[in-house]
Amino acid sequence: MPELFWEDFVEGDVKTFGSHTVTEAEIIDFARQFDPQPMHLDHAAGAASMLGGLAASGWHSCAIMMRLICDGFLLRAAGMGSPGVTETRWREPVHPGDVVTLRRTILESRTSKSRPEMGLVTFRFELLKTGGTVAVDQVVVVMFGRRNPGARLA
Amino acid sequence: MPELFWEDFVEGDVKTFGSHTVTEAEIIDFARQFDPQPMHLDHAAGAASMLGGLAASGWHSCAIMMRLICDGFLLRAAGMGSPGVTETRWREPVHPGDVVTLRRTILESRTSKSRPEMGLVTFRFELLKTGGTVAVDQVVVVMFGRRNPGARLA
Repeated sequence: MPELFWEDFVEGDVKTFGSHTVTEAEIIDFARQFDPQPMHLDHAAGAASMLGGLAASGWHSCAIMMRLICDGFLLRAAGMGSPGVTETRWREPVHPGDVVTLRRTILESRTSKSRPEMGLVTFRFELLKTGGTVAVDQVVVVMFGRRNPGARLA
Repeated sequence: MPELFWEDFVEGDVKTFGSHTVTEAEIIDFARQFDPQPMHLDHAAGAASMLGGLAASGWHSCAIMMRLICDGFLLRAAGMGSPGVTETRWREPVHPGDVVTLRRTILESRTSKSRPEMGLVTFRFELLKTGGTVAVDQVVVVMFGRRNPGARLA
């Protein structure tokens, strides 16, 4: 049984979750499989690029953030999926040795008229590096089951 | 030397690229590492979810699309990175056995006043399943080097 339902996500709440040290091996592994651009595979190519050194694919940064979201709260929640991401900004590169954490801000919470068993929560997720620099900034809508479903409208 | 520069991306152009058959093993591998929600790990949990069966993490679908982008044209181009993704919509789940391809539409192309050596291209990338169903729909801005850099403004 999930512990967290739609009612547990309150507008304005800000929390940080988890920690992950990004390694050179995982940056290169991800890039080989999904994003084999030279700056994600090779130190010299990274240094010559706008990223200033070997750096994770932007999709790898998003995937690392998703793991922090799962471990932080989503796996304990009555999540019902997401229709998509409103916006993703890659603000700063993620390099080997960076320690990243998740900051979650609840921007909006609303019920669904057509589906009274669920509610929608709009989150801002930020992947923070040591010192608080924002590497990835993302706005996402997630659907959650309600602890107390609303009445279905006629 | 890159073959493709900013000048080669023409507004209105629509092309499809590549093909990839998504396997159960890769869906589960990605989910174990980055998105261990039950519907991405287990057939029964997937069938009980809104996804209607074991289905790839939305981030996995984005990563598969990135690989098709790389192999389709990006690795041959003077790419200079991307500031981010304007919008990502996960429209349909990606299941084991789905054969996916990339459709690229060039929405907008413009030069950069502050950086005459580069231009910006706005793409719509769609991950299509067999039969043309859109699984992922994304709008992304990518920076490219210019074959013929503009004059730097005083």
